[in-house]
Amino acid sequence: MTLLHTIWLIAITAEAMTGAIMGMRRGMDLFGICLVGTVTALGGGSVRDVLLGHYPLVWIEHPEYLTFTIGAAIVTAYAAKLVQRLRQAFLLVDALGLVAFTVIGCNIGLEMGTHPSIAVLAGVITGVFGGLLRDVLCNEVPLVLTSELYATVALITGALYVGLISLGVSIQPASLIALSSGFLLRVLALKYKWHLPRFIDANPSE
Amino acid sequence: MTLLHTIWLIAITAEAMTGAIMGMRRGMDLFGICLVGTVTALGGGSVRDVLLGHYPLVWIEHPEYLTFTIGAAIVTAYAAKLVQRLRQAFLLVDALGLVAFTVIGCNIGLEMGTHPSIAVLAGVITGVFGGLLRDVLCNEVPLVLTSELYATVALITGALYVGLISLGVSIQPASLIALSSGFLLRVLALKYKWHLPRFIDANPSE
Amino acid sequence: MTLLHTIWLIAITAEAMTGAIMGMRRGMDLFGICLVGTVTALGGGSVRDVLLGHYPLVWIEHPEYLTFTIGAAIVTAYAAKLVQRLRQAFLLVDALGLVAFTVIGCNIGLEMGTHPSIAVLAGVITGVFGGLLRDVLCNEVPLVLTSELYATVALITGALYVGLISLGVSIQPASLIALSSGFLLRVLALKYKWHLPRFIDANPSE
Repeated sequence: MTLLHTIWLIAITAEAMTGAIMGMRRGMDLFGICLVGTVTALGGGSVRDVLLGHYPLVWIEHPEYLTFTIGAAIVTAYAAKLVQRLRQAFLLVDALGLVAFTVIGCNIGLEMGTHPSIAVLAGVITGVFGGLLRDVLCNEVPLVLTSELYATVALITGALYVGLISLGVSIQPASLIALSSGFLLRVLALKYKWHLPRFIDANPSE
Repeated sequence: MTLLHTIWLIAITAEAMTGAIMGMRRGMDLFGICLVGTVTALGGGSVRDVLLGHYPLVWIEHPEYLTFTIGAAIVTAYAAKLVQRLRQAFLLVDALGLVAFTVIGCNIGLEMGTHPSIAVLAGVITGVFGGLLRDVLCNEVPLVLTSELYATVALITGALYVGLISLGVSIQPASLIALSSGFLLRVLALKYKWHLPRFIDANPSE
Repeated sequence: MTLLHTIWLIAITAEAMTGAIMGMRRGMDLFGICLVGTVTALGGGSVRDVLLGHYPLVWIEHPEYLTFTIGAAIVTAYAAKLVQRLRQAFLLVDALGLVAFTVIGCNIGLEMGTHPSIAVLAGVITGVFGGLLRDVLCNEVPLVLTSELYATVALITGALYVGLISLGVSIQPASLIALSSGFLLRVLALKYKWHLPRFIDANPSE
């Protein structure tokens, strides 16, 4: 599980940076930037744990992780131009984070003995709700609900992982298969601008 | 309690549809529509359970309910014109859902041995917070807080139900009286456009 | 602790009033005004308790506190002009509330045996999240994250309090020192318009 943990640390750092960038765009001060960064990085896991009743939350048991997210937010605030220039690298790290968050979330659902469908959902919530809370705090319609194949990647990664575990595959190979498949799908979706069908209401009068 | 449970299933389906319609209007993709639909249907009960510490949440113990909300959201996405045409029927089902959610929420508060006022509040939260979360996700000032007598119906239904139970009336007749009174009040409020006083600030300079 | 409790009661009343004023500006009805007022006053402590798994929540165990917040909201709705004229007094009570919320939140973290950094964070969450939820419900980018030294005051107050306790100072003097220092800092920040650095993105194209 050490590989997954390392990916997770990289992922919360990257997610905190996306939160910090969004906070800066809304004119937030340094505290706001750190808070939005931290919520983006750790909010998905926190929502999952609160919904599952899985206490204590990760960052309450291990406050040292907060130094990653707060540090990443501060660095972003003072080196924004540099961070912006690394945008391509960012999207890749973000994709890695999404699938890592999802697999970790699925694991927690499985450990708690929930129904497999809830384990998948625990993964999706972990992957998606950080960005969702970031957008709510920044007064936006959540991006993950509108224009990206983001949540779908989490759903497929989670379903693949929980499916493999249910078939008796052990954690290590199941993680690797789910992580690499999900990552590949996300990168392809970004490259070819895939998205789910949308249904703009033709008749908005009500 | 079977009648109440049947009403509840109809209600989460109807609520998921109102969430899906709002999500479509915000240009969400199919995942976003399903998520907003599900949050609208099950969010009120989830907020109640998290605040009361009442675990596990309903949909985590019974993931089969998610098929109702996700199914309703998908049907709405592909049959939006039809759903829109049924608007009158919708409002009635929604009114039924509101009072059913409220009575169910009151019951959970009472079962947990909370103070009667908190049992009423548990009902109101169950009835109102689904729509409130839907509007926050869709970046709106929550409709239930502004223009409808919605929350007041929940409050009166809940107070009536908890009051009858406190007076020793058994669950079955208390439910029926509270459900029918609340439903009638909601329908009358819709028909005659009743609303609570509003207090638009005459002096918004600050 | 009686002084702190008295300050807390004054503080939730004042916070409920700020929430009610914001709700009125958004055209909410009386129910919405009461709900936003109550969420502003008790939301910070509720978020803290849910994240820490600290049950039952204060207002569920002591529903009588809801009469303070709902009463304050109703008074504000019907006497808005008067409340607006007391704006200076308000800011002082609000500052007192912020530091009282923070010290109380730190205490709960310490009682639960969390790491000192989490105890400080529990204080900051208690102080800041009420206003944050108010602004999310009113569809605003949270004020506490953008334009005020509000959150920083909570952070310094909390760090000072937890630091003093860790050094063996007893609760009474530690509270007094933290409360008075935090209050003074907030008043000075208001008077001299201090704020943290902001980082408006120079290059918002993405």
